[in-house]
Amino acid sequence: MAKEIDLHCDMGESFGIYNLGNDAEMMKYVTSISVGCGFHAGDPHVMRQTVALAAEHGVAVGSHPGFPDLIGFGRRQMAITRQEAADYIIYQTGALKSFCDQAGIKLQHIKPHGEMYQMAWHDEELAKGILDSFSAFEPTPIFMALYNTLPYDLALEKGIRVAGEHYADLDYLPDGTITIKKKHGAVDVKETVDKVLRMVLEEKVEATDGKDITVQAKSICLHGDNPMAPAVVKELRRELEANGVKIVALGEQSYP
Amino acid sequence: MAKEIDLHCDMGESFGIYNLGNDAEMMKYVTSISVGCGFHAGDPHVMRQTVALAAEHGVAVGSHPGFPDLIGFGRRQMAITRQEAADYIIYQTGALKSFCDQAGIKLQHIKPHGEMYQMAWHDEELAKGILDSFSAFEPTPIFMALYNTLPYDLALEKGIRVAGEHYADLDYLPDGTITIKKKHGAVDVKETVDKVLRMVLEEKVEATDGKDITVQAKSICLHGDNPMAPAVVKELRRELEANGVKIVALGEQSYP
Amino acid sequence: MAKEIDLHCDMGESFGIYNLGNDAEMMKYVTSISVGCGFHAGDPHVMRQTVALAAEHGVAVGSHPGFPDLIGFGRRQMAITRQEAADYIIYQTGALKSFCDQAGIKLQHIKPHGEMYQMAWHDEELAKGILDSFSAFEPTPIFMALYNTLPYDLALEKGIRVAGEHYADLDYLPDGTITIKKKHGAVDVKETVDKVLRMVLEEKVEATDGKDITVQAKSICLHGDNPMAPAVVKELRRELEANGVKIVALGEQSYP
Amino acid sequence: MAKEIDLHCDMGESFGIYNLGNDAEMMKYVTSISVGCGFHAGDPHVMRQTVALAAEHGVAVGSHPGFPDLIGFGRRQMAITRQEAADYIIYQTGALKSFCDQAGIKLQHIKPHGEMYQMAWHDEELAKGILDSFSAFEPTPIFMALYNTLPYDLALEKGIRVAGEHYADLDYLPDGTITIKKKHGAVDVKETVDKVLRMVLEEKVEATDGKDITVQAKSICLHGDNPMAPAVVKELRRELEANGVKIVALGEQSYP
Repeated sequence: MAKEIDLHCDMGESFGIYNLGNDAEMMKYVTSISVGCGFHAGDPHVMRQTVALAAEHGVAVGSHPGFPDLIGFGRRQMAITRQEAADYIIYQTGALKSFCDQAGIKLQHIKPHGEMYQMAWHDEELAKGILDSFSAFEPTPIFMALYNTLPYDLALEKGIRVAGEHYADLDYLPDGTITIKKKHGAVDVKETVDKVLRMVLEEKVEATDGKDITVQAKSICLHGDNPMAPAVVKELRRELEANGVKIVALGEQSYP
Repeated sequence: MAKEIDLHCDMGESFGIYNLGNDAEMMKYVTSISVGCGFHAGDPHVMRQTVALAAEHGVAVGSHPGFPDLIGFGRRQMAITRQEAADYIIYQTGALKSFCDQAGIKLQHIKPHGEMYQMAWHDEELAKGILDSFSAFEPTPIFMALYNTLPYDLALEKGIRVAGEHYADLDYLPDGTITIKKKHGAVDVKETVDKVLRMVLEEKVEATDGKDITVQAKSICLHGDNPMAPAVVKELRRELEANGVKIVALGEQSYP
Repeated sequence: MAKEIDLHCDMGESFGIYNLGNDAEMMKYVTSISVGCGFHAGDPHVMRQTVALAAEHGVAVGSHPGFPDLIGFGRRQMAITRQEAADYIIYQTGALKSFCDQAGIKLQHIKPHGEMYQMAWHDEELAKGILDSFSAFEPTPIFMALYNTLPYDLALEKGIRVAGEHYADLDYLPDGTITIKKKHGAVDVKETVDKVLRMVLEEKVEATDGKDITVQAKSICLHGDNPMAPAVVKELRRELEANGVKIVALGEQSYP
Repeated sequence: MAKEIDLHCDMGESFGIYNLGNDAEMMKYVTSISVGCGFHAGDPHVMRQTVALAAEHGVAVGSHPGFPDLIGFGRRQMAITRQEAADYIIYQTGALKSFCDQAGIKLQHIKPHGEMYQMAWHDEELAKGILDSFSAFEPTPIFMALYNTLPYDLALEKGIRVAGEHYADLDYLPDGTITIKKKHGAVDVKETVDKVLRMVLEEKVEATDGKDITVQAKSICLHGDNPMAPAVVKELRRELEANGVKIVALGEQSYP
């Protein structure tokens, strides 16, 4: 069977008068998006517009809930409890789901944002709180997570469908985690595409210590605020297809 | 057929460390509640707790969305567009619905809060925006509104089930509208109960000009921040039943 | 004596990760700025950075307080009381003043933002609330306002120094008020400069009904989010000086 | 010379429609208060009212800035930078200072709230950020801090007047730090007063391991949300005076 991969971008991170990212352009090339839900970015108007744009392009939608920290864009560590984590994700994802319902599309997945995503790698209570939220949604959404981390493994244990992510424009540490940047700088298109192709075809990536690590994923994450993102995603799509990889949204792939 | 009426209270208006109302006590006597959703009051933790308490008591739950004005408790006029109104209600109600889903109960109704409720009496665009939000929810929730007002009539026209409310502790103006107070003061229990009984049994209430007006409702609204509310609701329940009125949640009553 | 005029731009309206306007470029050409204070735009970090940039360029600083409406950028009408208006301006201006104090510069003026600026033209209580705030600051700041409006006249009556503003890129209504746009579109540079020159030199502008009205001002307001703003301000500066007008910050001009 | 001590309470922590604490009652007995500034609690209206009440009672006022976390009341750890800490304190304290200026009273001190207060005991960058903010205010405010901690020592080094606090209703750990509770429960009045008297007169307190530690302070902190606070402060005042201790606001005591 042909290998399948999802092309993914975080979107809907504009707020009020403020624009962020390049949603209209990126929407043409991706198969799934994660939408900001108002805590770290996004507002109800942006959410509706983003969902409408996705529906128009046949792109699958998931939530991108974050810490309640608009000034810090959800990229500052906050000590919240397991229960608080579940509550924040249910609140934000529920809000998004209703915009999906109105637009006639499904909620495909949940992908925590920023430090909520990262802190959970090393905080079991937070990881559990994230997964607690899934019982509020029917059918159970897919969980987007990083391979080689605690939340990924816990989701597997709980029987929640989990989709790993390859990060096109970020560096991998030897333990398989990545370093999320405050700003995503320009990248070399060919170098990035080659790195991602290898991750997809060989399930290997060179970590920051020069050694290869194993990575598994159903999705490739591109950052829309990276000025090179449209160039990368176009080239990536071409190369993946040339190598026999099918571009398929997360929800249409198969899970164990 | 016996007359049916719902006993109702706005709840879940605590926030963070702050407590408001008397939810635990009032929950024992009401059949439906409207829950604050974080814009004018309430937060994700309060929402979850309030829904859990309602589920435990078999009380039906609806959303109580307000303007994005926490400092003003949603009681200050704001000029928002029809689209903005719809978006705010979908966002807040969707968030609440997911807590209901997790608790295994239905979303029964939507009742706009404060100035969003009142401004719509005289603002057709706002009234339409409120009703636009209903298409995001399945099955379509009941709309709680004031009889004799524009949103009530528009909902009927659109075929949305609409439930009028009798206000136990507020004065009626000659046009059928009411004056919502910033603080709800103590009321005379007997006087209040007599007034409500007449509204229910005769569909009449004396307006501020001394003349009777016709009022129709499926629900009686009590304000939990009124210190007399528990005394009023207990006596009211007794008197209604003594007069052959059945106390039935909104969702179990019949609609044209 | 040579005519004097201030060149002015609203700045510091970025927020968190979001950038707005073109502060670094516009700062080179203006003599005064009004800085967002966190309610409609701006955050403590942006405020500090904006004040530092102004100090570096020798540009005078005032506050630009708005309604507590970040999603609506302070451009939606809100019904706040006289006391609430005073409190919001004192809070925001006080916060800004401390960044000025730390940077070793003075607080020159107060200029309400968006609908707080506009609603006061027709709302005497709001206008009074705005002026009530001035007693919290020593020395009393200059009040930036629109000529031909109620707040301008009330400030004169109260003995507060008031500086009128010419709006380079907005249309004047026959009553002397202007229409603030949600987005500021591109303008024709020569046409804009000619209009402003006439306002400064002849104190006349053609209103939307084709008739001239009288306008008086000590400052010319340019909108930094207008893509043409840098081109306009450069040409305007040249033409003003060529016509013998001195470019002088508000605080260094004389008041009756 | 007679021993001098300040009686202190955190106040102005109401928000919008929500009341917290017992400010009107406690204001009668204390000599200094720290006022919430809108980030963890308080709003511009509450701030003005609290400052006015303090001015009326001749009570000295300082700021009580917290993390930007209203839902968590500033009692959740947040990872902010040194610069962010300074900015948040300048913003909040500046806002408060303007209400003080309008009321004709001085800003006496700065006392960080909740986790901003506690995290700094073990986070040197945060402690430095707190102290960086002091240069924005003239004259330099007094810094309220806990004896035996890093921020206390750093302030001494920088030549900032620092006032230690005795906590009447909290337990001391062997290292001299305390455990701040989410809710302050009822305390035994006599036991509490005896403990505080010993701290003031002997500079000793028994820590949780049963051993005495040395404590030095210029102020005794009482929590207004503790239902016993008025009883404690009345008895404490009586006993302190009976033991020859003078009750004197922080700003009127002498510093090395």
